[in-house]
Amino acid sequence: MFAATGRLTDLICGTDAANAVWSPRQTVQSMLDVEAALARASAAHGVIPASAVGAIEAACHADHIDAAALMTGAAAGGNLAIPLVKQLTAVVKAADAEAAKYVHWGATSQDIIDTGTVLQLRATLDLIDADLRDLCAALADQARKHRVTPMIGRTWLQQALPITLGLKFAQWLDALTRHRERLSTLRSRALVLQFGGAAGTLASLRDKAQPVAQTLADELGLAMPALPWHTQRDRIAEAAACLGMLTGTLGKIARDISLSMQTEVGELAEAAAAGKGGSSTMPHKRNPVGCAAVLTAAMRAPNLVATVLAGMVQEHERALGGWQAEWEALPDLARLTAGALAQMKAIVPDLEVNTGRLAANLNATRGLVLGEAVMLALGDKIGRLDAHKLVERASKEAVASARTLFDVLSADATVTQHLSSDQLKQLLDPANYAGCAQAFIDAALELHHANA
Amino acid sequence: MFAATGRLTDLICGTDAANAVWSPRQTVQSMLDVEAALARASAAHGVIPASAVGAIEAACHADHIDAAALMTGAAAGGNLAIPLVKQLTAVVKAADAEAAKYVHWGATSQDIIDTGTVLQLRATLDLIDADLRDLCAALADQARKHRVTPMIGRTWLQQALPITLGLKFAQWLDALTRHRERLSTLRSRALVLQFGGAAGTLASLRDKAQPVAQTLADELGLAMPALPWHTQRDRIAEAAACLGMLTGTLGKIARDISLSMQTEVGELAEAAAAGKGGSSTMPHKRNPVGCAAVLTAAMRAPNLVATVLAGMVQEHERALGGWQAEWEALPDLARLTAGALAQMKAIVPDLEVNTGRLAANLNATRGLVLGEAVMLALGDKIGRLDAHKLVERASKEAVASARTLFDVLSADATVTQHLSSDQLKQLLDPANYAGCAQAFIDAALELHHANA
Amino acid sequence: MFAATGRLTDLICGTDAANAVWSPRQTVQSMLDVEAALARASAAHGVIPASAVGAIEAACHADHIDAAALMTGAAAGGNLAIPLVKQLTAVVKAADAEAAKYVHWGATSQDIIDTGTVLQLRATLDLIDADLRDLCAALADQARKHRVTPMIGRTWLQQALPITLGLKFAQWLDALTRHRERLSTLRSRALVLQFGGAAGTLASLRDKAQPVAQTLADELGLAMPALPWHTQRDRIAEAAACLGMLTGTLGKIARDISLSMQTEVGELAEAAAAGKGGSSTMPHKRNPVGCAAVLTAAMRAPNLVATVLAGMVQEHERALGGWQAEWEALPDLARLTAGALAQMKAIVPDLEVNTGRLAANLNATRGLVLGEAVMLALGDKIGRLDAHKLVERASKEAVASARTLFDVLSADATVTQHLSSDQLKQLLDPANYAGCAQAFIDAALELHHANA
Amino acid sequence: MFAATGRLTDLICGTDAANAVWSPRQTVQSMLDVEAALARASAAHGVIPASAVGAIEAACHADHIDAAALMTGAAAGGNLAIPLVKQLTAVVKAADAEAAKYVHWGATSQDIIDTGTVLQLRATLDLIDADLRDLCAALADQARKHRVTPMIGRTWLQQALPITLGLKFAQWLDALTRHRERLSTLRSRALVLQFGGAAGTLASLRDKAQPVAQTLADELGLAMPALPWHTQRDRIAEAAACLGMLTGTLGKIARDISLSMQTEVGELAEAAAAGKGGSSTMPHKRNPVGCAAVLTAAMRAPNLVATVLAGMVQEHERALGGWQAEWEALPDLARLTAGALAQMKAIVPDLEVNTGRLAANLNATRGLVLGEAVMLALGDKIGRLDAHKLVERASKEAVASARTLFDVLSADATVTQHLSSDQLKQLLDPANYAGCAQAFIDAALELHHANA
Repeated sequence: MFAATGRLTDLICGTDAANAVWSPRQTVQSMLDVEAALARASAAHGVIPASAVGAIEAACHADHIDAAALMTGAAAGGNLAIPLVKQLTAVVKAADAEAAKYVHWGATSQDIIDTGTVLQLRATLDLIDADLRDLCAALADQARKHRVTPMIGRTWLQQALPITLGLKFAQWLDALTRHRERLSTLRSRALVLQFGGAAGTLASLRDKAQPVAQTLADELGLAMPALPWHTQRDRIAEAAACLGMLTGTLGKIARDISLSMQTEVGELAEAAAAGKGGSSTMPHKRNPVGCAAVLTAAMRAPNLVATVLAGMVQEHERALGGWQAEWEALPDLARLTAGALAQMKAIVPDLEVNTGRLAANLNATRGLVLGEAVMLALGDKIGRLDAHKLVERASKEAVASARTLFDVLSADATVTQHLSSDQLKQLLDPANYAGCAQAFIDAALELHHANA
Repeated sequence: MFAATGRLTDLICGTDAANAVWSPRQTVQSMLDVEAALARASAAHGVIPASAVGAIEAACHADHIDAAALMTGAAAGGNLAIPLVKQLTAVVKAADAEAAKYVHWGATSQDIIDTGTVLQLRATLDLIDADLRDLCAALADQARKHRVTPMIGRTWLQQALPITLGLKFAQWLDALTRHRERLSTLRSRALVLQFGGAAGTLASLRDKAQPVAQTLADELGLAMPALPWHTQRDRIAEAAACLGMLTGTLGKIARDISLSMQTEVGELAEAAAAGKGGSSTMPHKRNPVGCAAVLTAAMRAPNLVATVLAGMVQEHERALGGWQAEWEALPDLARLTAGALAQMKAIVPDLEVNTGRLAANLNATRGLVLGEAVMLALGDKIGRLDAHKLVERASKEAVASARTLFDVLSADATVTQHLSSDQLKQLLDPANYAGCAQAFIDAALELHHANA
Repeated sequence: MFAATGRLTDLICGTDAANAVWSPRQTVQSMLDVEAALARASAAHGVIPASAVGAIEAACHADHIDAAALMTGAAAGGNLAIPLVKQLTAVVKAADAEAAKYVHWGATSQDIIDTGTVLQLRATLDLIDADLRDLCAALADQARKHRVTPMIGRTWLQQALPITLGLKFAQWLDALTRHRERLSTLRSRALVLQFGGAAGTLASLRDKAQPVAQTLADELGLAMPALPWHTQRDRIAEAAACLGMLTGTLGKIARDISLSMQTEVGELAEAAAAGKGGSSTMPHKRNPVGCAAVLTAAMRAPNLVATVLAGMVQEHERALGGWQAEWEALPDLARLTAGALAQMKAIVPDLEVNTGRLAANLNATRGLVLGEAVMLALGDKIGRLDAHKLVERASKEAVASARTLFDVLSADATVTQHLSSDQLKQLLDPANYAGCAQAFIDAALELHHANA
Repeated sequence: MFAATGRLTDLICGTDAANAVWSPRQTVQSMLDVEAALARASAAHGVIPASAVGAIEAACHADHIDAAALMTGAAAGGNLAIPLVKQLTAVVKAADAEAAKYVHWGATSQDIIDTGTVLQLRATLDLIDADLRDLCAALADQARKHRVTPMIGRTWLQQALPITLGLKFAQWLDALTRHRERLSTLRSRALVLQFGGAAGTLASLRDKAQPVAQTLADELGLAMPALPWHTQRDRIAEAAACLGMLTGTLGKIARDISLSMQTEVGELAEAAAAGKGGSSTMPHKRNPVGCAAVLTAAMRAPNLVATVLAGMVQEHERALGGWQAEWEALPDLARLTAGALAQMKAIVPDLEVNTGRLAANLNATRGLVLGEAVMLALGDKIGRLDAHKLVERASKEAVASARTLFDVLSADATVTQHLSSDQLKQLLDPANYAGCAQAFIDAALELHHANA
């Protein structure tokens, strides 16, 4: 019932789809896909007999592999490819002894492991691209919908000046649009074949080396790198960095939402779902369960990136530790990122917006957060310095006497001389002091659409 | 055949025993052990009816739990305990509806998860203590055996002055002896009960809170902490730090051994084993497979420690991300450390020592590494400064003329005036210039025995 | 006016005292202190002439050192000791040419650098111990003072059940008391001499090696290790880990305080100070400036610990990168930890407690957070299950109708049959539902006093 | 003489130029440059009087700033901009009281700090681009020069198959060429203005907000972002990641060179320089001092990247810790990367290549590393399987009898039947078994030239 080794909490921070991409079975299948493609490519150039291909291809299915034996063999040999090739050869041999001689021809373990990983990375990026597109679309919708919904902006966790809720969504969207660009560039740089043979020269394939490599790349739908990159790990590092950066932005969004869900703030809420985040005995409680999962991913991702970066310092033509450290770090990072993204994609479209609390919180300081607006208007009439002093004094008075800033200012002769009660109300309306919020939202939407 | 989620490379960096301790099944069983003990403790103080205990205990077996439902529920609720308690209650109810009302009485999810983790940590420390004892014993044996085997000491990866192989073993032993002290202290501080209820006050247990807590701790063989520690994670952080430090020392040993196994050095070698590190077509190759696994662990451990440390910044009475980040980081670290230790325990007793290469490498510089010894002896006769100049000049001459230092010095009148050929030979024998090596080995052995 | 290289923000996250301990000047002075002590120790055992000591000691002052030349020399030689010894020798020579021959006798660069670092570490621990003692005393005071001040406990950033403010202080105190134990153990293990000579055998000191080492340790007030530990870095790693763990706990406290300072929460506040965290135009704003500095330290510390841990994988008898990586990481960590601690020591005694907001927030859910208390009392009369259903129904009704739980329950016939209005009020008073808060506070205070 | 706070080892891992870019003085000057440009931009759009510009510009020089007061003020206010603006205003006021009113108009502290950082980042990228261009050119030269110089390829630190030294250089070059692409993309994405005012809406500038912003960007030569990005830190994270990745590749090169410099390997060496890495008493020693500095940087960089990534999780419109954590982490990373790059730029062109040792090491296994070449040639005649068995047997015999593979094979009738002694010699010549080395070198050079 339970896997001997496994990660019970994967569903908290992962997704079925991403977990499947990086499952042991798919890891093995990806390597077998490379072996099958290698047989086809080698046969295409006469390196191995065409007659061997069928039996090799037929054997390249994870169903034929004994996982327990694989793991024992991996421990002894130091990587998965050694025992896998051994098992694969045995499976082929049972069907076609001659074909078995041509399994894994010209390749080294790392060719198979790295190219398999690249295939899994591509599948991960496909998942992420789709979810990121959806998340961005949802944020664009929310930005449009809440364009002019006033809310308080907060700095240092303190109320500062008004913004709009739409602007908050637009800022998140803007960052994610840049991540989409980065992931697109990453594809062109990282989704390449690894094929170099034992020391990276493809020597054993003699004059057929480059043709086989090119056909192998074509078979797998991967680009050809200029050189094998066994111990040049910048491509993997870039993949890790891009995933880590994306998770960082998702963490920022989750931090904001979870802070907004505090009982004392109550502005936003993850949608309630059966068994999700509620409490029968504490009906006031709405736990930010999705945000917690994203924040967990955002706490783990940076150190997984660091592991991959540290692993770049590899020895000569095959590393001793640095490469092997990628084997769990990159999958963990991929699953965490995909999981965090899926969580956020689920949260954003159904985010509950409590406009009553948004408005109430804007009034929590009795108008003090709009003092700057009055100061600017008054400055046009009586000079900025005097206006500044007047509003500063009024603000302090409002605090001291627990009155609204409107009441204090309305009682000030200088103010009433220059501003009507209606004008003062207008100035103290947060909706009128959101600066460039609309222009910024438009700019973010425009970039989003250009990228969509 | 393959686990839906799992870690195919666990056997490269883990051990069966440690993987079992942290398997999903054992994670669940540990939590169920806590639930069963809680039922007993609660009944002992009349908090729940004694009649409920039997049914609850009987249900507290991982076999009764549906793993798939557990993971789905964990994703919705944000932790494993919520769906586990739900399933457990259903299992109890099927047998005894009345008893089902008393499942999980007075506890909060984190009580069960944290205490379960502490039980798994204890099992890990048991494994580590045993392996560490064996490894230290093996190092002590090696230190004694090779006490006077001369070898070159290396600084900056350059040959420097002679040491003995036994001293190298003694230095490793010395560090590991300190780790044993640290792990012993850790046990007393970290192997404690977590039991605080929803907000850490045990309020729902009223006047029975502390008696139940004490009995629960006794039942589980854990110490009682002064307070619940839901968001005070220094104990977990210390566990992580101790594991990370141990892995660092193991990595240092693996670095040394793998450097010594280089084709061009050839002083030490992991013992050959069937299918381990050899190559049929390259019989000269002896891959440091065990060392690579240890180095992989040593590359990953620091960042797992960092994750746990970063997670210490937790919110109020229950965290949002920091606690959850421990759920994979601590198990990964525990498995990696136990795995690295098991590898090294297997390597050290059977380490092949090539005394021929040790001697040959000591001679690689034709005696230059012993210049200091001659200089000191000569200094006693002609003054240190003159001796220094003489030996420095002779060393340069030896390099320039590709002769041995002995030959150059033997041709120097000043030298021959003060030192006989035999004395010179004695001085240039690395075995005679190992300084305090014997005393240091004795000191390390003494501390080891005091600790054993 | 500005240092050529330096850290302008040191005062945000550091303290004058800790910055001074790790200043370039003090780094150099510490190394010179070791050189002076070495001269004394060597002379004491006749290794160098007693007549040389005076001139060497006189030269061992940072004032004599040319910092620019030192840095240039360090870049060429790869460490600070090489150019420092060169300059020191020149200074001695200018006064006493004969004495200059005996500078740095028998030592290797790493002996001087490491022992100098240990001296700086000791000074840091002295600072930290003093501040930690003060902080713990302040927390003990606050715990006593606010023992029974009710406040809401929060899980997942949501209101959960009542606690007392004193309990919160006690929990922080409890964690810090354990850190004091760890730091005390650290002293005994880490404050040791490093003295091994070029390859760790002290060969050049022949039969005087151990006596000189012991006297050198005594001179510096350091313990003698069993062996030199040039590439066994567990002691430094333990120092880093202890600092990192302490900063983690400080970060937790800062997180809690800063969340409590939110405009919408307003329960706690760092004391206002001239120019600190206030805003003339936004008088409602009270920025958690001290907490931000602590949180910054807590964000950086884990990765500095990781650097030191990663650096443990060192090569043979002198490392290539791992040792050197400590040179900035450990000082940064020391300064950040000392700085974070100093900030918290300043915050805690003057923390402003807004009891009005504490009470108001406890009432924010109109009594729902006390439902459990009523449920338990009612359970004694009508059975737990019925009580649970009743209170659950009443809670939902209170939410739906925006009434208090008291009002809803007062209108329930079953309730009024078993509980008087006064009893109900008592049950809904958070002060009466703080569970073991008092006992836990006492336990924390007791451990604190035992440790003080 | 010594800075109060500073980093004495900066010259080990930094460069004068990069240290200058991130010096306290330049940090302040960069912020002042932003303030001056803001004054010009604001005046250009009539937001402040044109007459104020001169006095503000004149005051915007670091010489006018009191560093000690700045640091004290920074500690109280929580950032450098608050006390800097205060001092700047005072300086302006002394010259022109009216102008002083318009200092910092419309900006928030973070606008000045972030934009100042972007200017410093640009200067860093300028330094890095230049050095990277030089390093790549030097590697291209070396790759051409040593195109056909045979050397042994090593996997797992064991001798494997031949490569050429030129191929090794080409692989390093290939990775660095990709880094140049990444840094180029980074410029377009990261070198943008930060300007949003107190809550990111530029509200206080009313209808002049966007014109002022655009002019400010133009003044500073920075691109305009779609929105302010106060708490969207992906740009900074990308900068950190790019620097970290580059340092990782530099670390890989340093690892290879330092391994090649081992006394027992002796193939490559950093050029000797006065006082650099040599030892008067141990003339055989050539310490890899430059490589050690690079490896130190490569050990620290990943964790600095992790800090910046972790810091991305920022609160609302201004962060509490995450932003502040960048303040030292990014400069440290920039200096370390620039320093590591400068070291490598100095090492590569003057790298000493010991062709004698290259050849000797190729022969260390007496031809075993060429067994595959013979096997392939023989396979063409007698079938691959028989050829494999024959060579495997011969290899084992060569090891057992300490003869060369040539001697063993020459004595084998099957071999001599199909291969002449000359043909066998050709096959056992490593120069003839370098596979695609030439094609790969050409490919790397081509990409390099396309990028140059």
